[in-house]
Amino acid sequence: MSISAMTSPYSSSKRAKMAAGQPISALMTQALENADLLSLAAGFVDEATLPTTVVRQACAEIMADQRAARAALQYGSTPGIPKLRSMLLERFLGEQSVPVANAPSVDQVVVTAGSNQLLHLIVESLLDPGDIVLCTEPTYFVFLGILANVGGRGQGVATDEHGMIPDSLDEQLKRIDAAGELGHVKAIYLVPYFDNPQGITTTPDRLARIVEIAKRWSIKHKIHVIADEAYRELRYEGPDYPSTRCYDEDGDTVIVAGTFSKSFSPGIRVGWGVLPSHLVDPVCEQKGNIDFGSPNFSQAIMTYVLEQGQFDDHVDGLLAGYAPKLQAMLDSADEFFGPIEGVTWTRPSGGLYIWARMPTGLDTGPEGPLFRRAIQEGMLYVPGQYCFPGEGEPVQLNTMRLSFGVQTIARIRQGMQALSRAICEAQAAGD
Amino acid sequence: MSISAMTSPYSSSKRAKMAAGQPISALMTQALENADLLSLAAGFVDEATLPTTVVRQACAEIMADQRAARAALQYGSTPGIPKLRSMLLERFLGEQSVPVANAPSVDQVVVTAGSNQLLHLIVESLLDPGDIVLCTEPTYFVFLGILANVGGRGQGVATDEHGMIPDSLDEQLKRIDAAGELGHVKAIYLVPYFDNPQGITTTPDRLARIVEIAKRWSIKHKIHVIADEAYRELRYEGPDYPSTRCYDEDGDTVIVAGTFSKSFSPGIRVGWGVLPSHLVDPVCEQKGNIDFGSPNFSQAIMTYVLEQGQFDDHVDGLLAGYAPKLQAMLDSADEFFGPIEGVTWTRPSGGLYIWARMPTGLDTGPEGPLFRRAIQEGMLYVPGQYCFPGEGEPVQLNTMRLSFGVQTIARIRQGMQALSRAICEAQAAGD
Repeated sequence: MSISAMTSPYSSSKRAKMAAGQPISALMTQALENADLLSLAAGFVDEATLPTTVVRQACAEIMADQRAARAALQYGSTPGIPKLRSMLLERFLGEQSVPVANAPSVDQVVVTAGSNQLLHLIVESLLDPGDIVLCTEPTYFVFLGILANVGGRGQGVATDEHGMIPDSLDEQLKRIDAAGELGHVKAIYLVPYFDNPQGITTTPDRLARIVEIAKRWSIKHKIHVIADEAYRELRYEGPDYPSTRCYDEDGDTVIVAGTFSKSFSPGIRVGWGVLPSHLVDPVCEQKGNIDFGSPNFSQAIMTYVLEQGQFDDHVDGLLAGYAPKLQAMLDSADEFFGPIEGVTWTRPSGGLYIWARMPTGLDTGPEGPLFRRAIQEGMLYVPGQYCFPGEGEPVQLNTMRLSFGVQTIARIRQGMQALSRAICEAQAAGD
Repeated sequence: MSISAMTSPYSSSKRAKMAAGQPISALMTQALENADLLSLAAGFVDEATLPTTVVRQACAEIMADQRAARAALQYGSTPGIPKLRSMLLERFLGEQSVPVANAPSVDQVVVTAGSNQLLHLIVESLLDPGDIVLCTEPTYFVFLGILANVGGRGQGVATDEHGMIPDSLDEQLKRIDAAGELGHVKAIYLVPYFDNPQGITTTPDRLARIVEIAKRWSIKHKIHVIADEAYRELRYEGPDYPSTRCYDEDGDTVIVAGTFSKSFSPGIRVGWGVLPSHLVDPVCEQKGNIDFGSPNFSQAIMTYVLEQGQFDDHVDGLLAGYAPKLQAMLDSADEFFGPIEGVTWTRPSGGLYIWARMPTGLDTGPEGPLFRRAIQEGMLYVPGQYCFPGEGEPVQLNTMRLSFGVQTIARIRQGMQALSRAICEAQAAGD
């Protein structure tokens, strides 16, 4: 073939240039491919808790009913199956211990392929390149990838064990305003319940203040609050706080993202958003252009499972499985990290993760002295640096996320012990 | 709540402003909500052909095997289940009647939520705002929405019953180059088999020439050819031509998009791409940020169905169901349109659509005299105007797409008769 221009270069879009691979993808692949490596990295759910019986029954029932079977296998509408959306709304409203003012209608519930897609659609609808989202710090690294993909900027806000610190948020907005950048701030992002990566929960008084601050600083335009409630169901102890949406009396500021990926099955991959009404069309229009609607079959399964009341039973089983794993991780941390000077960690009451801080100066990154030693010792963690936005509060290189979802209690202990050996070796080597 | 900035306006991204709703969504909703309206509009597949038995069995088998069940309900990797991808590749290579030079590897196969998502990911990876894709005219309207969403421009190329006309494509590129816009041309888009909306097939000699032209004009950068092979399996008569990929000896120019939506089930929603190797990372990185991988459960079902050899049997059944429907639509066109001066239509040998041309001057659009009369007569069609890119060849306002997929043979005839009455009324009224 003698085509003259055969060697002409591939010209990628600006957006493709901005998209970095999700660092976690590489870690997940590493974990999937190396069965011997004891991974406390991936946020996979516990295989043993996956609802095989419930889904088998749901599929059998749906497929046995000719009409339901055909509907499940046919195209659906972009926002999702109406029955599913109304049940999601009913659950959402029913979960709150305080009344939801300006209660959303079913039109404001949109079903997506996991909550990640909802986050993508929101970011796509709100941000132009150069725009800013203020995030808890550390924050969910996949969200940072979503931001980077559209040329958005994540800016970390100081965070303590009760979540994003409202006074720091307010101060930061003041500084941004003084720098003439307030017009770029489009949203505030937080994971209020048992967050990723720290496992911490934002207290209701803080949620109320964060919403108030977002509204007060909505001077040039509306600053939304994105409340990513992916882990709300995974509560092992303590009270269930109301959703951030409950503190948005006008109903025009808070976006709630939810998902069944953690509480039921990531392979079914049904997430949803409860949106301010002005965002419904933009989100659905984006979605129509991206995938023309999420798989109807997955939605039909979740509809059946919710209708039959099997979801709550499943969550009860999950909690019974995960609670002792969290305890095992905390016990192991006490046992193996406790004796090491300068190592601290969070003590979550839900979720799938704890966040550990190594002695100052010990870099946990993939090129640092600890990471390769941990792999040599047979375990894998998520380096904390992936969880820090590019701006705002400084990156803490001595941090890591540890997940207790996948491994057995014995292996959690083994992994934590292996990690403690790696820490001691790295400190001893002093490199 | 006395928040001062309560009324601050919502500021949407430039991209959200560019995204128009898919016109077809409104039509689909209209059809779904009005069961009495006889729709020859929606590209739904025939409910009666949906693989309820096959999927029931697949679900039962997968869920009965603990290991398979858990894998299906767990997270997967962004490009999709490796076994599924290797079977897709094997099928693709096996289908061609000419050898595939520079045969792609399994790494170049990426699974998506329908082929629409693949088209979106490609457009996202290649186009910046203002960039151009040259399209057959008329073209698949959802693709035009995908283009608009990223600020891309569709430009129609003259097309006849054998597909896009290579000489016209070459001429158009010459004009674009002379206007200094060649740097904006990023791709050529076509639906080679039984296309949407016309039902026409692009002949192999044209495919070869189109690929050659794309390579020859790849002066400033690579101009890709996007071959959307969504309807390839729905061939009721005539030979199966080789894929456009077979004419790309370097393997660096042609992108193939495939899907099981039409040939199996749109509710399962598994599509795929066979990509030049330089596009794999950009596409997967975009996808990682959009949905972190398509539902594993849907992929597991398709993997099982292909493994068990049930897919080809299902397609055989589909063909037996659709072929007489196409015949019924063509017979009805002969019977009811034949006597009306100036009405012409395509005679496809596959796919789900025919394309009809009304007498010159008869506007088929939603605001025109025919559309509302057709609804009054009880039927719905897709106005042709949605299928014309904003640039290039002029819009033909007197055209429409008619789909024979959903309705029974009796109702196809009834719908065509109703449409013929509406045409005669509109002509008689002369408005």
